[in-house]
Amino acid sequence: MRRLDSVADSHQLDPWLSLTDLSRDIHSGEVSPVEVVTDVLRRIAALNPVLNCYITVLEEAALQQAAALEKLLLSGIDLGPLHGVPIAVKDNIDTVGVRTTVGSRVFADRVPDADATVIERLKAAGAVIVGKANMYEFANGSWHPDYGETRNPWDTSRSCYGSSSGSASAVAAGLAHGSVGTDTGGSIRYPAALCGVVGFKPSYGVVSRAGVYPLSPDLDHVGPLGRTVADVALQFAAMHGHEPGAGLSSQTSRLRVEGIERGIRGLRIGTPRLQPGEMVAAEVQAAIAAALGVLESQGARVVEVDVPDHLVSCAAVWTIFSAEFAEHERALMQERPNDYSKVVRAAILDGEFIPATDYVRAQRVRQAIRAAYRDVMEDVDVLALPVTPVPALKVGAETIDIDGHVQSIWPAFERYCPTFNATGLPALSVPCGFNQQSLPLALQLVGRHLGDWTVLRVGNAYQQATTWHESHPGGLGS
Amino acid sequence: MRRLDSVADSHQLDPWLSLTDLSRDIHSGEVSPVEVVTDVLRRIAALNPVLNCYITVLEEAALQQAAALEKLLLSGIDLGPLHGVPIAVKDNIDTVGVRTTVGSRVFADRVPDADATVIERLKAAGAVIVGKANMYEFANGSWHPDYGETRNPWDTSRSCYGSSSGSASAVAAGLAHGSVGTDTGGSIRYPAALCGVVGFKPSYGVVSRAGVYPLSPDLDHVGPLGRTVADVALQFAAMHGHEPGAGLSSQTSRLRVEGIERGIRGLRIGTPRLQPGEMVAAEVQAAIAAALGVLESQGARVVEVDVPDHLVSCAAVWTIFSAEFAEHERALMQERPNDYSKVVRAAILDGEFIPATDYVRAQRVRQAIRAAYRDVMEDVDVLALPVTPVPALKVGAETIDIDGHVQSIWPAFERYCPTFNATGLPALSVPCGFNQQSLPLALQLVGRHLGDWTVLRVGNAYQQATTWHESHPGGLGS
Repeated sequence: MRRLDSVADSHQLDPWLSLTDLSRDIHSGEVSPVEVVTDVLRRIAALNPVLNCYITVLEEAALQQAAALEKLLLSGIDLGPLHGVPIAVKDNIDTVGVRTTVGSRVFADRVPDADATVIERLKAAGAVIVGKANMYEFANGSWHPDYGETRNPWDTSRSCYGSSSGSASAVAAGLAHGSVGTDTGGSIRYPAALCGVVGFKPSYGVVSRAGVYPLSPDLDHVGPLGRTVADVALQFAAMHGHEPGAGLSSQTSRLRVEGIERGIRGLRIGTPRLQPGEMVAAEVQAAIAAALGVLESQGARVVEVDVPDHLVSCAAVWTIFSAEFAEHERALMQERPNDYSKVVRAAILDGEFIPATDYVRAQRVRQAIRAAYRDVMEDVDVLALPVTPVPALKVGAETIDIDGHVQSIWPAFERYCPTFNATGLPALSVPCGFNQQSLPLALQLVGRHLGDWTVLRVGNAYQQATTWHESHPGGLGS
Repeated sequence: MRRLDSVADSHQLDPWLSLTDLSRDIHSGEVSPVEVVTDVLRRIAALNPVLNCYITVLEEAALQQAAALEKLLLSGIDLGPLHGVPIAVKDNIDTVGVRTTVGSRVFADRVPDADATVIERLKAAGAVIVGKANMYEFANGSWHPDYGETRNPWDTSRSCYGSSSGSASAVAAGLAHGSVGTDTGGSIRYPAALCGVVGFKPSYGVVSRAGVYPLSPDLDHVGPLGRTVADVALQFAAMHGHEPGAGLSSQTSRLRVEGIERGIRGLRIGTPRLQPGEMVAAEVQAAIAAALGVLESQGARVVEVDVPDHLVSCAAVWTIFSAEFAEHERALMQERPNDYSKVVRAAILDGEFIPATDYVRAQRVRQAIRAAYRDVMEDVDVLALPVTPVPALKVGAETIDIDGHVQSIWPAFERYCPTFNATGLPALSVPCGFNQQSLPLALQLVGRHLGDWTVLRVGNAYQQATTWHESHPGGLGS
């Protein structure tokens, strides 16, 4: 692993302070928003050339915003817990006056004239956007060469996977205190898990997608990443909210809000029984078993449950999103085919050949999966399962090795996430240990529809009893 | 027009009594359910060979049921307005112990072991099912030769169109006092309009489709037909109802129930402006203009509105239902391709070649149309427009002649109905006159989502002031 000490020794504040603690220090006057943002920008300047977390860094705008927020605070106006906190925003989410590339050459110069609704909400809550985070081209499965691959701060020879790679890497490396990502088949949870941070895909429809570039309207979700569950909860609280007229977010009014500090005594946690052909690395299994032990020691009850075949969900999700993405890109592909990378162009062409009958069948399968999960979730409050069967892969890997069994990446690596895009259930990735190479391992917690706060409560309880989230990648400067 | 006097002179009761009046007579004891059912069965025996309304007649079962209901009534137990009333049920709706062919040879011997939910509800309300009504094969656009074409009672050389042809013809010919149909692109409203009866497609999701053979889950509706709006309202009241757990019918709990007798003073009725290429026969235009005059004289206010292009809706509906139907039939088509008629087999094969991207686009268009109608319906309580541009066609017609302009049947004839499957808005076909050949003309009234009772209220007010619904086909016996 390449040592990064040399490029990152000039920061002044503790970059590993949680968003929650940073917020406390800002509100107590111990640090000012300008100091915080200045320090994060300095750290970005030092480390981004290595990690490639950001496509665009908002130096001037972020400092201006920080200065304004500082004045506001001095004049007694407090916008809440995110006041003055530096965050990263995935580059498929519109930011007014700031180019939003969607990881594509097609939009290299596109500057939106309005913020996405979720950005409006975060700005109104005082968050400072320090940069637009790197991502897979169109969030679709690989990098556009123009922007290159984001590196994993725990081992820069390894990938963050995607597609919210920059959003995860930036938080893991101390280049933002929180971030916003999107998740159509696991794109918040994979990089969060592999980078050792917390990533949360809320219930479908709870966070507005207005102003977010669509990949698959039936599966797209927007959600926060952070170093702790509490950090993620603070961002989520600011992101969601009832918007009259915006159909998708009307669900928010039915969101069951509850404190995440209440403990988990009496909660039932379901663990899905192993399915035919399913393989999980022993180190991941052991870490999850230990995590379940921690949750049991806090009063939760762990029970085994049967859930629908993960791979059926994967196939349904793949068909739905391939067709919806191909449809969305049809006009642009005709105009500028050569501005797509080879991989994404091939994905669009593949999508154009899916018969409608397959798509309809995939939607029917999805409805059946949703119904099956409704039944499963009547008996348990949350599910606990892996995010990935192995930790972070080498950059460029095309296979994964699960304790000696070599498999192609898709769908073995992506077995556990797409189901919860198909079902729309809230799903949280929480760090739960490290393997012998110091690569982060993660636990996925899944809740009932609109049971977002219960999921966050369980994750928070786990972090109250463990310290994995207090470890940080070596070699990035303290 | 062939005279039918000779085959239908043996009935004893007035076959033209409305369901509402029949119900009054049954409850007052003036006639008994057994007498009513006996008479209808006798009439069916006489006229069905000519009209071909029924695929299956339930002589024994209907009489048994009538006898039981008669005893119940004598013992003081009254199941409500439908108690002892003979109704027809389209043959794609499951009836326990009674074969349900879906108009297909594939299901010629299929006997369901449970009633569809809507049938359970109608039976619990006391309705007597006298027969399973003829329909297009799979409700898909033509007749299977095994069952043949249903004839229009107003002129047996003419079609009822489809697909709920038997349900409409039976009510028009006095072979049932009410009936149940299904409507995926107009299949209740077309035959109702052409046979001079009332047909109602309720709001999407308000009447359960459990146990109804699917054509297109996104567009399918179940609804009643009758001789008057009041008759239809009585059946609708029994058909809908909240079913815990049945997602689709959960909307019922939000249905705005109101009396249909309240009059329409102050209601706003929108009439869509003529669209490019749109042609309506002068006789239809004149009848609708006169109907609007009647509604105005009752205190409604008529205003012109712009609505989305009807043909765009038709195209979206066609793509969606073709793909969904082809997907649903895939397995059966592989097993028994030769049991499909040539026309339906071709429709399924066509559906299999629709690309998923076209389907996704059609769904996007549908969402846009729904949104546009939400805006339109903010300004008016109901819309008034034609059901068809001309009255009933000759059997076998492949073109329509609109005042000298010859066009292919599809989509010119089906211009006005599919939109309200795409939008899910409640839509009522009401007789509004006759042309010079004594063929019925019809008005379509469309309401807001879940505004079903408002639509029925307007239709009822219209019938309070007019007598079109009191005319009956000549030559069928008094």
